[in-house]
Amino acid sequence: MNTALVIEDVRLTPILVSDPPLLNTQGVHQPYTPRLIVEVVTRGGTTGVGETYGDGAYLEPARSLAEALPGRAVTDLNGLFALADEVCDGSHAAADDRVDAGGLRGVRNAGKIRLSVVSAFEVACLDALGRAQGLPVHALLGGKVRDSVEYSAYLFYRWAAHPASGERDDWGAALDPAGVVAQARRFADTYGFGSFKLKGGVFEPDREIAAIRALAEAFPGRPLRLDPNGAWSVPTSLYVAEQLKDVLEYLEDPTSGTDNMAAVAAATDVPLATNMCVTTLAEIPEAFARDAVRIVLSDHHYWGGLHRTRELAGICRTFGVGLSMHSNTHLGISLAAMTHVAATVPDLAYACDSHYPWQTEDVITERHTFTGGRLTVSDAPGLGVELDRDRLAALHRRWLEDDGTHRERDDAAAMRVADPDWTTPAVPRW
Amino acid sequence: MNTALVIEDVRLTPILVSDPPLLNTQGVHQPYTPRLIVEVVTRGGTTGVGETYGDGAYLEPARSLAEALPGRAVTDLNGLFALADEVCDGSHAAADDRVDAGGLRGVRNAGKIRLSVVSAFEVACLDALGRAQGLPVHALLGGKVRDSVEYSAYLFYRWAAHPASGERDDWGAALDPAGVVAQARRFADTYGFGSFKLKGGVFEPDREIAAIRALAEAFPGRPLRLDPNGAWSVPTSLYVAEQLKDVLEYLEDPTSGTDNMAAVAAATDVPLATNMCVTTLAEIPEAFARDAVRIVLSDHHYWGGLHRTRELAGICRTFGVGLSMHSNTHLGISLAAMTHVAATVPDLAYACDSHYPWQTEDVITERHTFTGGRLTVSDAPGLGVELDRDRLAALHRRWLEDDGTHRERDDAAAMRVADPDWTTPAVPRW
Repeated sequence: MNTALVIEDVRLTPILVSDPPLLNTQGVHQPYTPRLIVEVVTRGGTTGVGETYGDGAYLEPARSLAEALPGRAVTDLNGLFALADEVCDGSHAAADDRVDAGGLRGVRNAGKIRLSVVSAFEVACLDALGRAQGLPVHALLGGKVRDSVEYSAYLFYRWAAHPASGERDDWGAALDPAGVVAQARRFADTYGFGSFKLKGGVFEPDREIAAIRALAEAFPGRPLRLDPNGAWSVPTSLYVAEQLKDVLEYLEDPTSGTDNMAAVAAATDVPLATNMCVTTLAEIPEAFARDAVRIVLSDHHYWGGLHRTRELAGICRTFGVGLSMHSNTHLGISLAAMTHVAATVPDLAYACDSHYPWQTEDVITERHTFTGGRLTVSDAPGLGVELDRDRLAALHRRWLEDDGTHRERDDAAAMRVADPDWTTPAVPRW
Repeated sequence: MNTALVIEDVRLTPILVSDPPLLNTQGVHQPYTPRLIVEVVTRGGTTGVGETYGDGAYLEPARSLAEALPGRAVTDLNGLFALADEVCDGSHAAADDRVDAGGLRGVRNAGKIRLSVVSAFEVACLDALGRAQGLPVHALLGGKVRDSVEYSAYLFYRWAAHPASGERDDWGAALDPAGVVAQARRFADTYGFGSFKLKGGVFEPDREIAAIRALAEAFPGRPLRLDPNGAWSVPTSLYVAEQLKDVLEYLEDPTSGTDNMAAVAAATDVPLATNMCVTTLAEIPEAFARDAVRIVLSDHHYWGGLHRTRELAGICRTFGVGLSMHSNTHLGISLAAMTHVAATVPDLAYACDSHYPWQTEDVITERHTFTGGRLTVSDAPGLGVELDRDRLAALHRRWLEDDGTHRERDDAAAMRVADPDWTTPAVPRW
């Protein structure tokens, strides 16, 4: 093996990035959210970057994996999973079973956290390999089949300011149909997005139905999606589906669990999408056999990286299930990774989600720009992004100086600042 | 894109390679069998090689694809499928539906033939890319997870000599249990194979049961497999399974079609493997839903190359179906490709099949050597094989000079030389 491709060092940098007061069924985003930046440095002097969730439950296994990597090659990606199983001990598993990342990622356990950690190392290795070899990451995945990837506008109910700090951006509040339409208009005007997803589960269903109908009126014929993160019962899901069947491209996770999703799917023609009931390979057979979902929203963080995302795409293609892409709060490294892998999947029939426009801070020198709702697939070596070390250091300093309030994402805690009686709602909430 | 990786030229060389008089349920192997060698030459002057079936139905689409490739990059693998669909017109499809490659590959149609053609180009591109970049093919597939790949001895009933030409090798006949055991002994002594597969469907089931029992006695505890290529009815399959349940690792394609396989699977604990009822992605959902097979024998020729084989592995892992590897008559290029991809699949729980020991002719300068039943995974750039141009030219000359008898593999025609009344047996034969 080419010794220039052997890993010499791995650097982990936890950071806090600012996040607007976006609402979801669990609460509200905190002013800062944790991310972990992974750098893999080869003996040849090439550095590759990756990013993933930055909560404590992810940092522990990330440190174990970082210690184990030096001496292995950046080409050694299939071996990362067994390595992670070996070196990340189960000590954090019990803790994980107690916590729950806002309940927005489906079931959370040590295995899933490990895959999210591996994903950042896999992406960093691919970036390093691509840079060292002069190949874009998509070429390391069998090559792009499109030159740009379409994304969807990700609309949120939101407040104008964070309740604790009073920090505000220039988006203002969006708490009613007019506010949602105004937000969508700005997204469309600024980035050219042609489809719209509203994060729901925040208000009672009729209020969210009204918002979607307002979007349909403002943007006739555009694909619309509503995602209440599993907050509804089966009857409520069917009621919403019936009300919006003429305008929805799909309904995302209306209800929680495969049983409920299958019951909804059986009684409506509105396609159901998920990033909650199918988040691991183990959940696929039952969900597919029961026709619980028509579209899987892949996320390379969940699934363990870009190769695994391609495997998921192959599985979906085989079973006639559609594929699109989920997005959680992430920065430009992950958006680059998403775009590379999305470019290689032949049958990506839906615009991908991206949270990215809400993230005004980043750790790369040149932020991605959506044009016509699309990102151009980079042909530069690796991911095609450059780390901004000053920004990285500044965001890491924020993490170091934090009093602990923001090192664990906790949307319910943030909501309690405004509403001291708030507790994480039980599902179904409606 | 790096212009050195752009394809400048593609060379197709149909050849005839000698083949011993091996028996199967359709007839007997002809003295020569057609293969197609694909060379992809980049602007940077790197040549990559691939091989696939060489019958006429494969040459036509191969020529169309070869003409379309110059100007594209060797990294552009995901795009090969749409390109093949576009440039390989359907004119040969009707012809394909009339022919049938010995009935040993499951249903045959234009789409499957196209995938087998694409596979050779994909492998040649990966070889060229690996050579140009100084990376072994396994590293282009996410890296090996093992340093050697285990293969199984592939036993055949056979004659001592070809009926038409009288050509003979030094293996002699194997037509009874003693002959099969002697063949297995030589395979074990020469190559160290630790598991044995017998190609069945040649004689009445009791005679083949006796051969497997003789193997079990001669090699106690070794994994044994029997493959009659779908020649049996459901009751016969269950009879054989019952007789051999204590010694079989698996029974391969005892009967034809998903219905029959599912019926057999439901009534025996002997695992069923297949390279006939599941040979395309489209066949997977029904076969898996009905638990018709416990092991899929992948074949990168069938599935469209090494990336697709890895997708298949992911699908099998997801559904708890085992994976192993099928082999048809092939040369050292394909064996190298098989070994690279097999090395990258974490959950390869069974020794792979390989016909290779029966092929005494090859087009590479150094033949692969099985040691302890295994092949070492090459870390040399590309596949790690070198084309022997003199041998290639000689085998191509044989193809050019052939009177047409051998350009299409036809095991039934070969059998008719010995038995003028022979017709391809209808299934179930027993």
